[in-house]
Amino acid sequence: MSDTKMQPFDQLVRELSSLPGFGKRSAQRAALSLLKNRSKINKLIHNLKEVDDKVEECQTCGNLSLSNPCHLCTNQERNQSVICVVEGVDDLWAMERSEFFDGVYHVLGGVVSAIDGIGPDDLRFKELLQRIENTNISEVILALGASVDGSTTGHLLARRLKEKGVKVTTLARGMPMGSEVDYLDAGTLTLALNGRMEI
Amino acid sequence: MSDTKMQPFDQLVRELSSLPGFGKRSAQRAALSLLKNRSKINKLIHNLKEVDDKVEECQTCGNLSLSNPCHLCTNQERNQSVICVVEGVDDLWAMERSEFFDGVYHVLGGVVSAIDGIGPDDLRFKELLQRIENTNISEVILALGASVDGSTTGHLLARRLKEKGVKVTTLARGMPMGSEVDYLDAGTLTLALNGRMEI
Repeated sequence: MSDTKMQPFDQLVRELSSLPGFGKRSAQRAALSLLKNRSKINKLIHNLKEVDDKVEECQTCGNLSLSNPCHLCTNQERNQSVICVVEGVDDLWAMERSEFFDGVYHVLGGVVSAIDGIGPDDLRFKELLQRIENTNISEVILALGASVDGSTTGHLLARRLKEKGVKVTTLARGMPMGSEVDYLDAGTLTLALNGRMEI
Repeated sequence: MSDTKMQPFDQLVRELSSLPGFGKRSAQRAALSLLKNRSKINKLIHNLKEVDDKVEECQTCGNLSLSNPCHLCTNQERNQSVICVVEGVDDLWAMERSEFFDGVYHVLGGVVSAIDGIGPDDLRFKELLQRIENTNISEVILALGASVDGSTTGHLLARRLKEKGVKVTTLARGMPMGSEVDYLDAGTLTLALNGRMEI
């Protein structure tokens, strides 16, 4: 695969293929398309520099933004007393796309994982607890993944938050929109039944 | 999707997603992973510059290489009288990986296509015919795709090459290695039957 005998090219392929969603094959195709259209190389270099220079991590919530604190944390039209806890910045953006939530966020930076050796101290637990002590928070919404690790993280976090006397909620589990009952797995069906609502 | 309200980031995502094999979603994931690991951004910029500075197109065969003419065209251990015609540089590399062919190459830069309005003049037909006039070529092997456009290109090229009195061959059509007869499509089966060989 890397038998092109071109060290710079092979290095670029290696660098590209270390990005998520990029195999060696597609990295080679991408590198080749850049070489066929050289102006794209300079554009890409410019964009990479711009992002590196201008994008900062918000010290309050962990969001990536052009300012610190970010545009969500400083927006007084948002409800600053409701914090939605998410695993990563991509989850925050997914929430924003749904345009339903008008509170603020807290990015944990992952979930606890026994296999990967990630504990609460590796995540932004402490920062969240400090935020709650320093500001008046009425509710913390856990919007973590519905996986084992996500649920474990939620339980750990909920316990610590409740010790501070703050109300903790989590996203509902149930049927995703557009789904059919006969295609749902048993676990989801059980959760949906458990969480049934009167209409 | 691009509601991140970060212009530099959205531009990087747009630039990345214009690469082949990269959707908007995976481009965003990749851009995010670069932001989480900033040292990768500088590495990538360095690699892009290196490739742009050092990789050249060989004026003889159209290969991408660190020299012009390329390391294949100048290698006297290769049979310089047999030219293998390929659509693109990636096909050339695929041939090299198979380590069977020891001649030289000619990159056409695509195939003729009525739909895309690509004719022989848009490809490196003329350069190939010139090579044949200037040097002593014993055989031209067509290694083009087994598609309609690939076959059309092959026929057009073969006619012009034969006018110059050069021997023209094409890659065999038939069963790919590891394939089962009952899974082959009718077209491939017909070609395989047509090209049957005595054993």
